[in-house]
Amino acid sequence: MSFSLLRHLTPVGHANSLRWGALTTGGRRLMSAVQATQDSMTGELTALPDINPSRLEITRNPNPATPPPSSSLVFGHTFTDHMLTIPWDVLSGWGTPRIQPYGPLALEPSSTVLHYAQTLFEGMKAYRREDGKVTLFRPDMNMKRMNNSAQRIALPTFNGDALLELIKELVRIDKHWIPKEPGHSLYIRPTLIGTQKAIGVGPPNEALLFVICSPVGPYYPKGFQPVALFGTTEYIRAAPGGTGAFKLGVNYAPGVMPQKAAAARGYAQNLWLHGPEHYLTEVGTMNLFVVFRREDGAVELVTPPLDGMILPGVTRDSVLTLAKEHISGTKKLPGLPDNLIISERPVTMKEVKDASHSGRLVELFGAGTAAVISPVDRIGYLGEDVLIPTGPDGMGPVSRPIWTELVGRQTGTIPSDWSVVVTD
Amino acid sequence: MSFSLLRHLTPVGHANSLRWGALTTGGRRLMSAVQATQDSMTGELTALPDINPSRLEITRNPNPATPPPSSSLVFGHTFTDHMLTIPWDVLSGWGTPRIQPYGPLALEPSSTVLHYAQTLFEGMKAYRREDGKVTLFRPDMNMKRMNNSAQRIALPTFNGDALLELIKELVRIDKHWIPKEPGHSLYIRPTLIGTQKAIGVGPPNEALLFVICSPVGPYYPKGFQPVALFGTTEYIRAAPGGTGAFKLGVNYAPGVMPQKAAAARGYAQNLWLHGPEHYLTEVGTMNLFVVFRREDGAVELVTPPLDGMILPGVTRDSVLTLAKEHISGTKKLPGLPDNLIISERPVTMKEVKDASHSGRLVELFGAGTAAVISPVDRIGYLGEDVLIPTGPDGMGPVSRPIWTELVGRQTGTIPSDWSVVVTD
Repeated sequence: MSFSLLRHLTPVGHANSLRWGALTTGGRRLMSAVQATQDSMTGELTALPDINPSRLEITRNPNPATPPPSSSLVFGHTFTDHMLTIPWDVLSGWGTPRIQPYGPLALEPSSTVLHYAQTLFEGMKAYRREDGKVTLFRPDMNMKRMNNSAQRIALPTFNGDALLELIKELVRIDKHWIPKEPGHSLYIRPTLIGTQKAIGVGPPNEALLFVICSPVGPYYPKGFQPVALFGTTEYIRAAPGGTGAFKLGVNYAPGVMPQKAAAARGYAQNLWLHGPEHYLTEVGTMNLFVVFRREDGAVELVTPPLDGMILPGVTRDSVLTLAKEHISGTKKLPGLPDNLIISERPVTMKEVKDASHSGRLVELFGAGTAAVISPVDRIGYLGEDVLIPTGPDGMGPVSRPIWTELVGRQTGTIPSDWSVVVTD
Repeated sequence: MSFSLLRHLTPVGHANSLRWGALTTGGRRLMSAVQATQDSMTGELTALPDINPSRLEITRNPNPATPPPSSSLVFGHTFTDHMLTIPWDVLSGWGTPRIQPYGPLALEPSSTVLHYAQTLFEGMKAYRREDGKVTLFRPDMNMKRMNNSAQRIALPTFNGDALLELIKELVRIDKHWIPKEPGHSLYIRPTLIGTQKAIGVGPPNEALLFVICSPVGPYYPKGFQPVALFGTTEYIRAAPGGTGAFKLGVNYAPGVMPQKAAAARGYAQNLWLHGPEHYLTEVGTMNLFVVFRREDGAVELVTPPLDGMILPGVTRDSVLTLAKEHISGTKKLPGLPDNLIISERPVTMKEVKDASHSGRLVELFGAGTAAVISPVDRIGYLGEDVLIPTGPDGMGPVSRPIWTELVGRQTGTIPSDWSVVVTD
């Protein structure tokens, strides 16, 4: 009994790694040994080991690849030499974190992720600054959201700071994969899946957290290109009481077929609407912003409120925060109108359409980690195209100054505490 | 070029099986060789090989297990010696079907199923009749629904008859795993996942269809036990424009946490409601039926219509069909009221609650492959319990005769063309 426990609390580099099979065999005894208690309300086990960076085991890839030329990169197709894996088990908590050669996962065909979509993920980027330092952008936001996502689909939660430490170590090991060219970065994909080997629908008794990294180029390699959206009244992304506010796999598969349908009509992405009022919610896989010029001359930056259907995007929050700092005078952004108003409020297609017709629509854009800012020039809606003004390079008078500040903070040309140094 | 094509069209048992790596390398040439064309509307490639049972390759499990005692079976925890796998690739269509030893799948960590929930499945059962024959129950319904599900999330479709042939072969090989005890069966789980090795959100360029089998006991080993439902006004299962009408993984993970919450309140399952009217939609992972005694004395069997939110269940369809045959006189069911009316119509919680209070509520039950019929005795709703009559053994005057006929047809004690013989 105590032997199992000691093995489990073994220090970094111990040769005998803990196997899930062993856990199952000695599970009950191990559980009593660590005084695990079950929360009567949530059923969750407490007092089990959390993610522990000091237990990290590293196995170097014996056959490292040569990173391909940056010009050849296609988003999410190339992966670095290593990945991070951390197993979890309901009886013993989080197991040994491992950085190991990138390679296939052996998953039982009964694994619940393959049947019931028990998966969630995050999207982060590591940037190589001009001074050579490697940084992450607001990674605490991703760790917090990842835990919120886990709670929503009964996957295990964890110490976000601990996972972040391990992600930093992974980035350090593969830092030569971060392209040096401007606008490039290393896209980081933390993922958490349910791996219970039984096809009952319920909270999984096993899970696997893994992190993979992919070098990526700029989303718009030839400069900003405004996109056309299809305002779909046929399909939805989210609904009240659903999962739209969480970064879960389940929010993505259902959008692919509507995306194909929009593309067949000549539009780049869907504009997801809600309810008979056709409230605007999100753009493809991005948050949405609209800018109106009000009758009193003020410029209103609008984004739908976090009402349970909207993903709390890191870029969304950053855009709002920068606009608020501009208004408060904490940090004025050159070029951004002084008479700016920020509204987190519902906005309907009728309002957007009316503003387009009356000339009070200033711009409309998506915001997300992959594209940062994605300007929109028209929306196909109920058989007509609603036209949206765009600036000379796509972005408008509000998005341009915000984008400049945001990318400056991401790449480190503008100092801020949003940029977290991984390695010198 | 022609060499690749010849390898691909190789007959059953050819030693050199086609590998996905080879496909990627020679893909473009192969595509032109088979004159693949892309549908301009759907983007789908046509004229590629479909699932072909004559190409089946069988590798027997060298270490077959001994089926455990039927009394020890827990739903979905035990699997048979073999599984069926069929790979698909956008450039070459469906590849070689293989029946091989049950075991782990090697999936790239970038596989889209692990990130974007590109998965769908079916639930079927093989029964061992008293005369020794092994049968499936209405398997054509599962094949049709599986194709509908695939189309909804941009996974490849296929010839359902061809897949059914292969499933029959798998069942024949593992038929000794079907428990002999009454009420037992072999649960069959066909699954289709997107396996593209790149984390862009889009139609996957690779997929894997696999089928695993699990011996199962009766859902209610000690006789019917009515369950209590929690009518949740906080969470939803589906919404208009969503995926509720398809058997997709995405419909299941989001229900686990609400299920835990219902259990913590003392209820077995959620009753999924829709809209401010609180329309009843489904019960946990089952379809829903309500029976009212109308003012004119008629007995009305109600189930929500297939409006896009309701899964078109095989058991749902079977219940409706048996009731219709009773009414039409095609086949009278002993004990079922003669003044029966069938309604596929919306039904609200107010209607159910009023009927409960006025004594006009006859019964309420779930219907699905796992439990067949699952009687309900109360619904927690807005702080009170709505009570539902149940018969002496749980089932009521409508569900009992239908259940008897349905199980008779499933197990072969009542002959019908719904029962499809797999092997003598």
